[in-house]
Amino acid sequence: MSKLRLTISMSLDGFVAGPQQSMENPLGVGGLRLHQWVFPLAAWRALHGLEGGEDSASNAVIAAARANLGATVMGRNMFGGRPGDWAASPPWQGWWGDNPPFHHPVFVLTHYARAPLTLAGGTSFNFVTAGIEAALEQARSAARGKDVALGGGAATARQYLSAGLVDEMLLSLVPILLGSGERLFEGLGDDLHGLQCIDTLATPQVTHLKFARR
Amino acid sequence: MSKLRLTISMSLDGFVAGPQQSMENPLGVGGLRLHQWVFPLAAWRALHGLEGGEDSASNAVIAAARANLGATVMGRNMFGGRPGDWAASPPWQGWWGDNPPFHHPVFVLTHYARAPLTLAGGTSFNFVTAGIEAALEQARSAARGKDVALGGGAATARQYLSAGLVDEMLLSLVPILLGSGERLFEGLGDDLHGLQCIDTLATPQVTHLKFARR
Repeated sequence: MSKLRLTISMSLDGFVAGPQQSMENPLGVGGLRLHQWVFPLAAWRALHGLEGGEDSASNAVIAAARANLGATVMGRNMFGGRPGDWAASPPWQGWWGDNPPFHHPVFVLTHYARAPLTLAGGTSFNFVTAGIEAALEQARSAARGKDVALGGGAATARQYLSAGLVDEMLLSLVPILLGSGERLFEGLGDDLHGLQCIDTLATPQVTHLKFARR
Repeated sequence: MSKLRLTISMSLDGFVAGPQQSMENPLGVGGLRLHQWVFPLAAWRALHGLEGGEDSASNAVIAAARANLGATVMGRNMFGGRPGDWAASPPWQGWWGDNPPFHHPVFVLTHYARAPLTLAGGTSFNFVTAGIEAALEQARSAARGKDVALGGGAATARQYLSAGLVDEMLLSLVPILLGSGERLFEGLGDDLHGLQCIDTLATPQVTHLKFARR
């Protein structure tokens, strides 16, 4: 069975993005501080077509988190562009340039229909207006037996968590405060909707908590 | 120099106590779930006059956290009793019975003066109405060169964190959600007021993050 897997970085105070997200600051003010630990890793660099990088304990975690993925689901907020219809000119193609680091079909949740967009390196963006379950079903079909990655933003991750549709979650906890922004677990109540912590790995920069279905 | 050291358990969503704290439910609804990991440990049992217990990695962490402490500062909410003056009959003596697990002088922040209370096992409760800095000064003096433990509740811990008065923090992160209650870092802004993460230890039940002054 193809799993839905969420990989996300969170601050000590529970934020996965900073406040005031915008075209200029897609992760919100201070949001980039959540991701500084990932940029030196060989596994991250390889996804972005870069050589070299650290082969640390975190690198093995990220390499595993990125293995066996055949599709990605993400929210409109993570794909970016202005809210509303897709009328911008030139058309918004995501934050990632001509060769995005997904290398498989990506399904973007949106209220506004749009024709698929095929970019280099095996990445296509497919726009789904029928809701989270339809997007997951399409992604599973496109993944051809591999797993599906759940991207952000926080609201999208929360919707899938609330619905009990997330099979695995890798939470990388960064020991900083953001003070405000988007909280991953806001409104989820007092349980993890079927997930439990099955493994932990602590490094000086980040602590990885791995969750799976009970 | 005598250090002020905070040792506290927190949920994934940032809560250190559940909602609806009361005399019947001092840690709030669900708050006890934050502490299940500590009860089997030999170091915790020894503080409460019990023999045996687990000698695990977490036990070593808690034994170290409890070593070299000469006094404790806590808030009225942690000491308990009804809010307001101390007129209850019989007088409130804390949650911990006749032989509390502190075994040193405890300084309780309150707006209502009260004569000191001396119990068995070396624990005394001293009531301080002059604010957090006065309480810390009195505790340091009483600690005679040893360190001072900072107890809760959340509001008290936040006040000392905000003032930059905490020298070490052991944050034991429990991989559960509480959904509501008291957040440790609420209103602290986007920095840890001089603290940085210096060590981490992950176990299946709990992840310990140790912070010290930069």
